[in-house]
Amino acid sequence: MKHVNAGIIGLGRAGQMHLRNLMTIPEINIIQVADVFIDKISDKLNDLGVTNQTTDYHEILNNPDIDTVFVFTSTDTHEQIVTDAANAGKNIFCEKPLSMSHDEEASLDVLRAVKKNNVKLQIGFNRRMDPQFRTIFENVREGKIGTPQMVKITSRDPDLLPHDLIQRIGGLLQDFTMHDFDMARYMMGSNISEVYAKGGTLIDPTLKDIDDVDTLALVLQFENGAFGVIDNSRRAVYGYDQRVEVFGSEGMLKAENVNNSTVELYNDKREELKKPLPMFQKRYKEAYTEEMKAFVDSILNDTPLVAQGSDVIMAQRVANAAKKSLDTGLPQKVDTTFSLDETKTNA
Amino acid sequence: MKHVNAGIIGLGRAGQMHLRNLMTIPEINIIQVADVFIDKISDKLNDLGVTNQTTDYHEILNNPDIDTVFVFTSTDTHEQIVTDAANAGKNIFCEKPLSMSHDEEASLDVLRAVKKNNVKLQIGFNRRMDPQFRTIFENVREGKIGTPQMVKITSRDPDLLPHDLIQRIGGLLQDFTMHDFDMARYMMGSNISEVYAKGGTLIDPTLKDIDDVDTLALVLQFENGAFGVIDNSRRAVYGYDQRVEVFGSEGMLKAENVNNSTVELYNDKREELKKPLPMFQKRYKEAYTEEMKAFVDSILNDTPLVAQGSDVIMAQRVANAAKKSLDTGLPQKVDTTFSLDETKTNA
Amino acid sequence: MKHVNAGIIGLGRAGQMHLRNLMTIPEINIIQVADVFIDKISDKLNDLGVTNQTTDYHEILNNPDIDTVFVFTSTDTHEQIVTDAANAGKNIFCEKPLSMSHDEEASLDVLRAVKKNNVKLQIGFNRRMDPQFRTIFENVREGKIGTPQMVKITSRDPDLLPHDLIQRIGGLLQDFTMHDFDMARYMMGSNISEVYAKGGTLIDPTLKDIDDVDTLALVLQFENGAFGVIDNSRRAVYGYDQRVEVFGSEGMLKAENVNNSTVELYNDKREELKKPLPMFQKRYKEAYTEEMKAFVDSILNDTPLVAQGSDVIMAQRVANAAKKSLDTGLPQKVDTTFSLDETKTNA
Amino acid sequence: MKHVNAGIIGLGRAGQMHLRNLMTIPEINIIQVADVFIDKISDKLNDLGVTNQTTDYHEILNNPDIDTVFVFTSTDTHEQIVTDAANAGKNIFCEKPLSMSHDEEASLDVLRAVKKNNVKLQIGFNRRMDPQFRTIFENVREGKIGTPQMVKITSRDPDLLPHDLIQRIGGLLQDFTMHDFDMARYMMGSNISEVYAKGGTLIDPTLKDIDDVDTLALVLQFENGAFGVIDNSRRAVYGYDQRVEVFGSEGMLKAENVNNSTVELYNDKREELKKPLPMFQKRYKEAYTEEMKAFVDSILNDTPLVAQGSDVIMAQRVANAAKKSLDTGLPQKVDTTFSLDETKTNA
Repeated sequence: MKHVNAGIIGLGRAGQMHLRNLMTIPEINIIQVADVFIDKISDKLNDLGVTNQTTDYHEILNNPDIDTVFVFTSTDTHEQIVTDAANAGKNIFCEKPLSMSHDEEASLDVLRAVKKNNVKLQIGFNRRMDPQFRTIFENVREGKIGTPQMVKITSRDPDLLPHDLIQRIGGLLQDFTMHDFDMARYMMGSNISEVYAKGGTLIDPTLKDIDDVDTLALVLQFENGAFGVIDNSRRAVYGYDQRVEVFGSEGMLKAENVNNSTVELYNDKREELKKPLPMFQKRYKEAYTEEMKAFVDSILNDTPLVAQGSDVIMAQRVANAAKKSLDTGLPQKVDTTFSLDETKTNA
Repeated sequence: MKHVNAGIIGLGRAGQMHLRNLMTIPEINIIQVADVFIDKISDKLNDLGVTNQTTDYHEILNNPDIDTVFVFTSTDTHEQIVTDAANAGKNIFCEKPLSMSHDEEASLDVLRAVKKNNVKLQIGFNRRMDPQFRTIFENVREGKIGTPQMVKITSRDPDLLPHDLIQRIGGLLQDFTMHDFDMARYMMGSNISEVYAKGGTLIDPTLKDIDDVDTLALVLQFENGAFGVIDNSRRAVYGYDQRVEVFGSEGMLKAENVNNSTVELYNDKREELKKPLPMFQKRYKEAYTEEMKAFVDSILNDTPLVAQGSDVIMAQRVANAAKKSLDTGLPQKVDTTFSLDETKTNA
Repeated sequence: MKHVNAGIIGLGRAGQMHLRNLMTIPEINIIQVADVFIDKISDKLNDLGVTNQTTDYHEILNNPDIDTVFVFTSTDTHEQIVTDAANAGKNIFCEKPLSMSHDEEASLDVLRAVKKNNVKLQIGFNRRMDPQFRTIFENVREGKIGTPQMVKITSRDPDLLPHDLIQRIGGLLQDFTMHDFDMARYMMGSNISEVYAKGGTLIDPTLKDIDDVDTLALVLQFENGAFGVIDNSRRAVYGYDQRVEVFGSEGMLKAENVNNSTVELYNDKREELKKPLPMFQKRYKEAYTEEMKAFVDSILNDTPLVAQGSDVIMAQRVANAAKKSLDTGLPQKVDTTFSLDETKTNA
Repeated sequence: MKHVNAGIIGLGRAGQMHLRNLMTIPEINIIQVADVFIDKISDKLNDLGVTNQTTDYHEILNNPDIDTVFVFTSTDTHEQIVTDAANAGKNIFCEKPLSMSHDEEASLDVLRAVKKNNVKLQIGFNRRMDPQFRTIFENVREGKIGTPQMVKITSRDPDLLPHDLIQRIGGLLQDFTMHDFDMARYMMGSNISEVYAKGGTLIDPTLKDIDDVDTLALVLQFENGAFGVIDNSRRAVYGYDQRVEVFGSEGMLKAENVNNSTVELYNDKREELKKPLPMFQKRYKEAYTEEMKAFVDSILNDTPLVAQGSDVIMAQRVANAAKKSLDTGLPQKVDTTFSLDETKTNA
């Protein structure tokens, strides 16, 4: 069996979740882990048998036994760490975004470093590997519904986030809807060329203070002529609501929510056991593992990456355009050209 | 038992369907029927026991035994017949629209005649009485989902209509989406104050020749701050797709399609018996009867009308605004004030 | 249009329900109705336009304008009325059983009168015409699941019946399970040749005083080698539970309960709107109308009867054998031969 | 973190599946593995990092670092190995049955060794830990459906087994239905006191040559007065059919099959993506892991075992009685007393 020799950078809550998933994949050897606050979790890591620990991610980048790094640090560090990792010749897994900068150039610079060093970079658009959505994707590709004409995404979070967290990771469009933009584009196999966003603060009016909304309705137009609708909310009291539907010339595919149980209860109280899975950690548990397996497969067998650098650029552009639409009340065009050639991009 | 003594005007295909429904309602006595081509169907009507027939609807309006008329004639006659019927002091059931005129004033004049003569006019927004959608409506009103924040409507026809029929009854927005505008407003209990429509001809490019589209994605804004998304298609190969969902601060209600059967077939061919009901006649069979029963109840017991004149005006305004949005590429405001006072309306 | 000219005998609660159904079938002219207590409901009948009323069913049998009688009187009168009607040359619709006698000969004598007079007799096994079960039946016949090997029926009443009513109409096996025996035989297209019944009084122990049970588990063997399982209860707190499944060499067909609504409610209370339809009147509303339509079709177009005399004999035999199994604790064979030839039957 | 130090005995197909599951449980350290044909799979095991391998299970029993053994060898070895392991003071996980002997005494002797050495023995009734069935179990225990009155189990294998395998592992009742007997008893919280089994060879008539059947219908009576129905088949062409329903005085709980996907496809071909999971390995994947986690928890925290020795004895007795019922055509009583006291048992 061929192996990926991995270093993990960032072991906060998300990082620890990913670590446990990575440990269940036989092809991955975890060689070393890094976190600036490694002391706080050192015992826990030892208990898991992960004993090669450091506070300095450069140790991992300098470790010749490591060929691949998984970056789970906070988003403000992505730009630096991914660039360093690329320059160190490591394959990289990283969550979006690649940069906090509002200027796309910063992210493109990261991708240029990846390209120059000829390493693999997979973006954490995990929903692409959710078994339900993946089934839709594959059936669309197999032509089961003919030419896709409409994608419908409902995406609702179980509850509001603290304002400071929103300010750190971006507002509803940047942090949340961006996943839907990527999903819509992935399903339709076409870039989003125009977006119209309408939204407001129906749940928490103080979100206006940090220039954010909690409710969104959007219309998308795709390069190939198809359309999309998205609706978002920050608080669905019944759980995490994640549904995707693709309609085409020969049929329709739709994925309802995944429930915690399929058991039906019938009594005289009209009680119900089924409920959507409550949080992204549970809802996308399989997706998190599957995206890692796909990344391993891409490294070991040179299969295509599930999501690459250009995908995050494209989703980011739509999020930026949607924000402008929200601010201006007008639909916004989205640039669908992509090139890492600096001359052109600067033009 | 109190009775409604009814005259029926218009016995084309739709009229005959309605006639059969009306005959199953014990409170309705059918006194007389009129159709300009009554000869062609006279035998069929006699067979049903409906023997008092005429070619001239004025006979019905002049018949003192008749208190209520059901108007099922083609839309270009609505303005005249409803006005005449109102002036004859009859209660009136009529399908939308009230006038073919693009100027709302014509419809308002009809409503003024209705008001002046103090008769009841119910508009055929039958979907309001569909048992599924009505269950949603009632649960929303009972507060089961708190404050409504988002309405989602998917409405897809089973197949394209002939171009000449479209030209007679109006394009996708006027004939089809208008029902969704009414449903959205009905569910949310608030007027639509802005609409954005994006669409195209993904199925039949020649629809451009008659200034129509076959595919639509829309965003609605309501007066009360809530939002809506609608998606439409002229051709869903799997049948007539009619779904409504209302999301609110305390939960969500959703109605999936009604299937022709609940029987599940499991074999090694992955065959499926369930399919959405194929056409509006079957899908809304109960709704057609229920709207008539409600109208009877309104006449006999003075309960509120299910849908009244102002409802058709409001839906029409949104359809007009949506058409303008489609043409201009920009969202359009919708006037939400309503008055039959001529001075004000002319202002 | 050809018509059935009908007389209705018996207008208690069941009779009135059937009357209203019959009035919606255009091919049926209701000529006359009879009930021993006709005075009590005369006004109600007049209101429905059913004015030709009598207390004496013989008037109906002697009425030459009537070709078909619908018998909805109490079961203790079936034997006499059906025999009289047959001898009067009328086609007959009648609920099971044909006789209160425990000796099958009495029922066979009724069938002999029917045969001798060459009239049609349809038995009210209405569930055969329930759209769900009928869909299963038709797909089984079309070979969609190959050779049927197992039928599974769950049949649970919403609540206990009064003891005196049970004594009048028969216990659980005679009144309730008998429908399941007929359904099982209908689905499998084969006679039940052996039955094993196990039951007890888990809900109402005093049922023992009238030699009845409230809970049953049964195994059936069919002549063609297939098997069946049935479970019954007198009280399902969640409503009327009526499910049928047929399993075969090439697949499986199953009908779950029909719910009062397909609308889904999601909130934080895990509340549910869907519930099985509460009572047989609602659950089998369509079945009651469909069986009448099929009877009309059989009379007018000589199509096969949905359920005939021998069907009730066969179901009755299984019920009797099941009662003996319950009493003895042993499986019981069931005679599957059928003949109206008196010599043979008496042998 | 406390750990279980494990030895694994038997690494055939089932053993390797279990090994991979055990490796995902952090509390389990796999110290040593044994298989008589260890050479054939040595490389594969090394690749998984399982390098301490032996052909002789006694090495494991003699290894003082090991506190717990998992026995995945063929059933004819269970009696010897479990007894040896108990005498070596190891906790034991073992699949049913404990002995090939038709005399229950042999199994009781194994349990006496377990008791004498005061070790834990968990039986592999994995379905008890299936998330769906476990949800039913817990809700029944919480009183959500009141007093259980009826349990309904449908259990159908995807295809016939080779005759020689059947002869090795036992026929339909011994190998397959036995799981249903355990499930029925587990759900109802009461011993099965009587069983009636009816069956035949509807799929493979040559099964008669090895005294087996492929189709079964059963009725159960429980000590507490409740009832049960089970139906089995060796070949469901649509996959592995595993359903459980419990009905009680206050409601009903039911688990339908777990499908491979929740994605719905609608097209004009009535095609369906959903299908029951095809085989026990996939259907009960979570159950296999959960039963191991529960066993670990029982060892480390002295929580109750999910399934213990007496459970297999009880299921075995019902299987034996059901076989006798099948052979004689008569219902059979089942002894529900249990004691390891040799004097009493021999009495």
